[in-house]
Amino acid sequence: MPPSETLSLPPTLPALFAAHLPPSSPSSCPFVTLTFATSLDSSLSLAPGTRTTLSGPQSKTMTHYLRSQHAAILIGVGTALADDPGLNCRIEGGESPRPIVLDPKGRWAFGEEAKVLQLARRGEGKAPFVFVGTGAEVENRRKDLLERHGGKYVFVERDDRGRFKWTDVLGAVGKEGLASVMVEGGGEVINSLLKAPENELVDSVIITIAPTWLGQGGVVVSPERTVDANGSPRPPARLTEVEWHPLGEDIVLCGKLQR
Amino acid sequence: MPPSETLSLPPTLPALFAAHLPPSSPSSCPFVTLTFATSLDSSLSLAPGTRTTLSGPQSKTMTHYLRSQHAAILIGVGTALADDPGLNCRIEGGESPRPIVLDPKGRWAFGEEAKVLQLARRGEGKAPFVFVGTGAEVENRRKDLLERHGGKYVFVERDDRGRFKWTDVLGAVGKEGLASVMVEGGGEVINSLLKAPENELVDSVIITIAPTWLGQGGVVVSPERTVDANGSPRPPARLTEVEWHPLGEDIVLCGKLQR
Ligand SMILES: NC(=O)c1ccc[n+]([C@@H]2O[C@H](COP(=O)([O-])OP(=O)(O)OC[C@H]3O[C@@H](n4cnc5c(N)ncnc54)[C@H](OP(=O)(O)O)[C@@H]3O)[C@@H](O)[C@H]2O)c1
Ligand SMILES: NC(=O)c1ccc[n+]([C@@H]2O[C@H](COP(=O)([O-])OP(=O)(O)OC[C@H]3O[C@@H](n4cnc5c(N)ncnc54)[C@H](OP(=O)(O)O)[C@@H]3O)[C@@H](O)[C@H]2O)c1
Repeated sequence: MPPSETLSLPPTLPALFAAHLPPSSPSSCPFVTLTFATSLDSSLSLAPGTRTTLSGPQSKTMTHYLRSQHAAILIGVGTALADDPGLNCRIEGGESPRPIVLDPKGRWAFGEEAKVLQLARRGEGKAPFVFVGTGAEVENRRKDLLERHGGKYVFVERDDRGRFKWTDVLGAVGKEGLASVMVEGGGEVINSLLKAPENELVDSVIITIAPTWLGQGGVVVSPERTVDANGSPRPPARLTEVEWHPLGEDIVLCGKLQR
Repeated sequence: MPPSETLSLPPTLPALFAAHLPPSSPSSCPFVTLTFATSLDSSLSLAPGTRTTLSGPQSKTMTHYLRSQHAAILIGVGTALADDPGLNCRIEGGESPRPIVLDPKGRWAFGEEAKVLQLARRGEGKAPFVFVGTGAEVENRRKDLLERHGGKYVFVERDDRGRFKWTDVLGAVGKEGLASVMVEGGGEVINSLLKAPENELVDSVIITIAPTWLGQGGVVVSPERTVDANGSPRPPARLTEVEWHPLGEDIVLCGKLQR
């Protein structure tokens, strides 16, 4: 892994997001910010196993600033496997969030060369808390590796579909003393959190949209619908208190989910 | 149909779109503007047969202004059947475009109560040119009805999949003396024009994005991909010379397709 470059924070950036970030006096349930980058056709990447660069270079600083404002950063195991992400904050003087990986079956077979562990060894990021299903098998060797870096496995109940309930996930996040969490992806994680009623748990949404189409077959953000009393499909979610900020060729959308 | 309201043009609107509209001295092939409104998950509507209001009230004036700047406005028969659209321009002093409906099989069974014909009778819009496949059966009664209103059937060759080639469609548009065309939808029409190499025919793209998700099952804009020399999927289209204009809670994206 090449040495990390440090990012310096443009002085105008914090004011832009002030209304969309966790408060300084937290409540019992962690503050949840959903943030990701999509194409015009709402794709996160060309295919599940690949990383696709969507947003322009300016968005990197924004992403790292947002990370500095959250106690934790959460992804699904699909993203851990596809991207080997660093999940740290490289803003000068910014604190890195605690990475959380949702891995109900314990599929993430990381070794010490995983980027997130390399960064932890260098003191440039934190080791992950890997949320696995109660009863899932984890290798002792991997448990040791995690713990040596300051991370750990956290066991969470699975439902009959093998999934965690978001209230349980956020309960566990809160129990770890983490007052805010930025959910970065990927598709399954985002869709499961945007659908009703789970989306009531989301406090803030920050989406970067790049002026490109990835085409049919990508990893798409499009939540499941519910139906109204007449059986007609109901749009799953709408944003309110909307702001649009151009960023290079991209646009950044900030909003809150309408109740 | 209730009496139509007239829209007055805000003086700032024309300058906003000046770089994205047909030139005053046209070339041989019509200038093609692709324009539509989507949700964050790139849906045009909740389902093929239904009309879904996506963009806010401010976008109506924009749409009608854009219509006044084009000689023709084109939709697929799916939209004609779902929406019974008026396709006229209600800006004070603005000229209505010529509606064109792509109807290869002659499925559009309009009567004199079709909104587009009602508006033509009132002198508030033009009657449509319906592009049908060579050899498709059209009823004489309906042919007469169209012609009495100043419209007509135009016959275009179909390929082996029953589709028109876009070069043929635009050739026929040009032959009718129409120097510019605004393509408004729906999903099939837009996707077939956004994929390569057809997207080379598009001169300008104007998309309104509303901060809402329509969810899985909508009519989605997401063009087919091609693959590169290694067989990897290639993003079908990207915009350049991008501008973003907030409009109420929505955003309007203007750009050109990157060559
Ligand atoms: N553009 C961006 O901003 C962005 C951001 C992040 C990721 N991505 C892209 O997204 C793609 C990965 O997305 P993805 O949908 O394949 O994977 P993902 O959402 O990262 O992970 C999906 C997996 O996480 C677990 N999971 C998700 N929700 C869960 C829940 N509620 N309870 C328990 N487990 C849960 C499941 O694991 P099991 O299958 O083991 O049960 C699920 O299969 C990659 O291509 C990546 O590059 C893009
Ligand atoms: N939000 C917006 O801005 C917006 C704008 C317009 C429409 N819409 C919505 O879009 C939906 C309709 O979309 P849709 O995809 O179902 O229908 P559509 O694109 O309007 O029409 C599709 C039909 O048009 C014909 N067609 C399309 N491309 C053709 C080509 N290259 N050559 C020959 N014929 C062609 C085909 O007719 P045959 O099947 O007969 O071969 C095809 O089935 C409606 O719900 C409507 O409300 C939304």
